Amino acid sequence: MEIEIISSQDEYLTGLGQRAKAAEVLLRTMSDEDKKKGLVAAAAALTEKAAEILKANSEDVAEAEKNGMRASMVDRLRLSEERIAGMSEGLIQVSELPDPVGTVLEEFDRPNGLKIQKVSVPMGVIGIIYESRPNVTADAFALTFRSGNAVILKGGSDAIRSNKAIVAVIRDALEEAGLPKDALLLIEKTDRETTGKFMKLRQYVDLLIPRGGAGLIRATVENSTIPVIETGIGNCHVYVDKAADLEMAVKIIHNAKCQRMGVCNACESLVIHREIADRAVPAIFGDLAGSGIEVRGDASALILSPDMKAATDDDWGTEYGDAIISLKIVDSLDEAIAHINRYTTHHSEAIVTADDESAVRFLNEIDAAAVYVNASTRFTDGFEFGFGAEIGISTQKLHARGPMGLRELTSYKYEIRGNGQVRG
Amino acid sequence: MEIEIISSQDEYLTGLGQRAKAAEVLLRTMSDEDKKKGLVAAAAALTEKAAEILKANSEDVAEAEKNGMRASMVDRLRLSEERIAGMSEGLIQVSELPDPVGTVLEEFDRPNGLKIQKVSVPMGVIGIIYESRPNVTADAFALTFRSGNAVILKGGSDAIRSNKAIVAVIRDALEEAGLPKDALLLIEKTDRETTGKFMKLRQYVDLLIPRGGAGLIRATVENSTIPVIETGIGNCHVYVDKAADLEMAVKIIHNAKCQRMGVCNACESLVIHREIADRAVPAIFGDLAGSGIEVRGDASALILSPDMKAATDDDWGTEYGDAIISLKIVDSLDEAIAHINRYTTHHSEAIVTADDESAVRFLNEIDAAAVYVNASTRFTDGFEFGFGAEIGISTQKLHARGPMGLRELTSYKYEIRGNGQVRG
Repeated sequence: MEIEIISSQDEYLTGLGQRAKAAEVLLRTMSDEDKKKGLVAAAAALTEKAAEILKANSEDVAEAEKNGMRASMVDRLRLSEERIAGMSEGLIQVSELPDPVGTVLEEFDRPNGLKIQKVSVPMGVIGIIYESRPNVTADAFALTFRSGNAVILKGGSDAIRSNKAIVAVIRDALEEAGLPKDALLLIEKTDRETTGKFMKLRQYVDLLIPRGGAGLIRATVENSTIPVIETGIGNCHVYVDKAADLEMAVKIIHNAKCQRMGVCNACESLVIHREIADRAVPAIFGDLAGSGIEVRGDASALILSPDMKAATDDDWGTEYGDAIISLKIVDSLDEAIAHINRYTTHHSEAIVTADDESAVRFLNEIDAAAVYVNASTRFTDGFEFGFGAEIGISTQKLHARGPMGLRELTSYKYEIRGNGQVRG
Repeated sequence: MEIEIISSQDEYLTGLGQRAKAAEVLLRTMSDEDKKKGLVAAAAALTEKAAEILKANSEDVAEAEKNGMRASMVDRLRLSEERIAGMSEGLIQVSELPDPVGTVLEEFDRPNGLKIQKVSVPMGVIGIIYESRPNVTADAFALTFRSGNAVILKGGSDAIRSNKAIVAVIRDALEEAGLPKDALLLIEKTDRETTGKFMKLRQYVDLLIPRGGAGLIRATVENSTIPVIETGIGNCHVYVDKAADLEMAVKIIHNAKCQRMGVCNACESLVIHREIADRAVPAIFGDLAGSGIEVRGDASALILSPDMKAATDDDWGTEYGDAIISLKIVDSLDEAIAHINRYTTHHSEAIVTADDESAVRFLNEIDAAAVYVNASTRFTDGFEFGFGAEIGISTQKLHARGPMGLRELTSYKYEIRGNGQVRG
């Protein structure tokens, strides 16, 4: 019996993979105009068929509430006319971004007369595994389709009815527009085993992007045979140098911690130079505590602000995603850099300093996707960087680092033109 | 007992990982001058201490011969004064290439005044798993060190004494030059279990590159949790279009197949348009058979050249690496493209044609790292592309595609300078 079940999963996934690969061939040479047309048609269909989507979504919501999902999660799951309009608007915005495919990235001639061009091409088939929020379904389609990729989505089981409805609406719209509907495929089986097998569908999937919490990302990295890009884990630091403008430091830290707490570019840990600590710690603690943030300090910090909670060693490596922040006092820039490099998740790190030499050392020596001098870590974001879109923020070094826009969803090929050259 | 063995392997690999990470920190900010100095010192040491290396190598060779290794493999294993001089010269050549680190790849200002630079940085710690040839040990060090990376090497058990000797000589040379010797580390345990655990050393290794046969690459992809770049599997095709210059086609095919047969950019399969087949097949078959190549044709080809062997369906997907080639006749460019895209390993594919429209379609629609018009597939090579060096040829689409030189061993970071900006 078990063998049959496994084989039916295999067939199911292989079938999806083959359909995605067939769509990939058409997408590879699809004109800019057709890619735009597909997104515009999908955007229109989402608003036209909002009622269908809302009906499916209300079933997901009812089921989630019955299962005791907490209210904040139910809110992420719930769609409305307004949220669907937002998804639709997102598709239009992405349609207006320039086509990242077909760009001549480099061009060079060889002494033997070969003319070599390095040209951007779609990645091929992209797999995306994500949790809960159904609007990701439309976003992920927009970005992958605009960059000429087919996509296979695996959403959370809580949102399965919503995701099926959104995908059906978009696929119908593509078909009506005369475009390959298999550019967008959804894995409708939400069991763990199917997900595990999806991660090994290397023959058909060129890149797998997990979007979600640390557990999902770790499971994907450990089980996938498809190349993975890790995204979105951020234990981000702000370091207040001895030469910091203290007022600026308080403002940056406040923004980096308080503006939005559940996001990956929020600050989770402060590092403060001892020479400025007697002024900086009370000022920063006062500001954060006043905003309801729990500050957990090391022994030196507790002496300066006795109302602070005590940090344990576990705090330094923790991404709270919540109203908590850790605070460590260091004796030198060297110690600050060593501490941050030890606990960084390679996402975003900032220094506040008026000393250019310290700034340059921090920029050069910190090993992170985005390193800031005198600015908030919250800017690590595809829109803030001007990319016009974002599929995620890569925290690994292969292929793409930091915010990933349309361009980061492309690869390249070398096109070589000769007139009979052979190798000597 | 088994638990103890496992734990000792873990400790051994963790120790290497930590040493590599410590070296990485120093390499991250190492000057161009020091990187050159390290390579020049290593080059000098290799020739000075050639006797030590040759002694160790002669033990490997004796052991291999005792174990019945075939002569061609023993030849790959055997070093000589001349081969060591070649390794040394390779280090000098790489030292003369420009430093790929610290290049400002892009630069842009945001409306809020943030100044963003995208700067090339080393990848970090690179792992390389390879087989047999001990000269790879010096080559891999040269490329990773020049690009500011620490490297952990896992060579074949047959060459372990040679590799240990080469690594010891280079590490001593680095130390004498005042540079971090842990930039180069060798895994001295050659058992499978250690290799398996090495592939999961994600905490310390940023990128893993397997160099070797299809079995090694598959095992790495399936078992590694470290991001892998697949290299060097090439089932390369030459397609002879109906509008081909036949003389050029014969010359290109001869070169692509015969110039060197065991390499990944050699041609393994021919695809010929039916409209030119009656002239092309006998001419190509005559040329290849005259050079001792076994040609395996489909039914249509056998009618034209009855001395040809018959191909089976297994032939289309086979990388022979030997004096064999398959030959298929197609009715159209469409069929040629579909056939090649079905069996390609995404390495190098060529069309011979005088028709520009066919050439452009082939360039656009074939999914390979290097696509050629009227030239031999043998040019897919870091040196032939003018990169000055090559760590391998990537056949996947993430990060790097085709020949990988120094630049492909780097990542990037965003350096952002502000004056107190916070996100609104």
